[in-house]
Amino acid sequence: MSMSSDEPRAFDGCAVRMVDPDRVAVVQAALPVDSDVVDVADVFGLLADSGRLRLLVALLEGGELCVCDLAAAAGQSESGVSHALRLLRAHRVVESRRAGRMAYYRLADSHVRMLLDLAFTHSGHTDAVHPERSQ
Amino acid sequence: MSMSSDEPRAFDGCAVRMVDPDRVAVVQAALPVDSDVVDVADVFGLLADSGRLRLLVALLEGGELCVCDLAAAAGQSESGVSHALRLLRAHRVVESRRAGRMAYYRLADSHVRMLLDLAFTHSGHTDAVHPERSQ
Repeated sequence: MSMSSDEPRAFDGCAVRMVDPDRVAVVQAALPVDSDVVDVADVFGLLADSGRLRLLVALLEGGELCVCDLAAAAGQSESGVSHALRLLRAHRVVESRRAGRMAYYRLADSHVRMLLDLAFTHSGHTDAVHPERSQ
Repeated sequence: MSMSSDEPRAFDGCAVRMVDPDRVAVVQAALPVDSDVVDVADVFGLLADSGRLRLLVALLEGGELCVCDLAAAAGQSESGVSHALRLLRAHRVVESRRAGRMAYYRLADSHVRMLLDLAFTHSGHTDAVHPERSQ
């Protein structure tokens, strides 16, 4: 393959500049495959909606709740809550159980509980959303 | 205020149906204020982009990296990485340190590290993104 300097190159000098190539190689080898990164980004996308997040925090506080109590607690319509719960359940963020005509929902596992806890702790202990307050 | 049945009501019977009003009241009282929920949703929104998430995982694996090594490890352009890092820094997801002309970035704190760890663990140990595989 010709490498003459007047040919267009796939990347410029900046893009291949590296300070520590060995370390870059170690990090590259440790990175998850693209599909896993996209999957996790999708889950974060579900949590990026304040309406859905409010439902999840209600389940974090209330443990297990039926759809109507969850709707009342979060101040949302039952149909909206049902739709959100179906989406969250498909991604295993919540789980459900039926008892007669009632459907009860809870957070899927301790990972989800800790993730929500951490996110609110992070938001609370930093000025995360008010960068103008930081030094 | 008139409550005659032929007047339009602000909510229908379904919206105010509650199985356990006491528990609903307890959950309502424990919910964070709306602005906090929106703030946390914004942070999840930052993490919902697979390009930014890849940078964060590179920092999770690599500890502290300069912009060029981070760009090389994640396979992204330095200008794109710089833009993403500014956004993540404004929300205190990453922190930076200058050494001469170099800028080094790391995850902001243990909350962010645990949050990323948990998200990838959750994704890995469930069929989260492949609901068709579940029972």
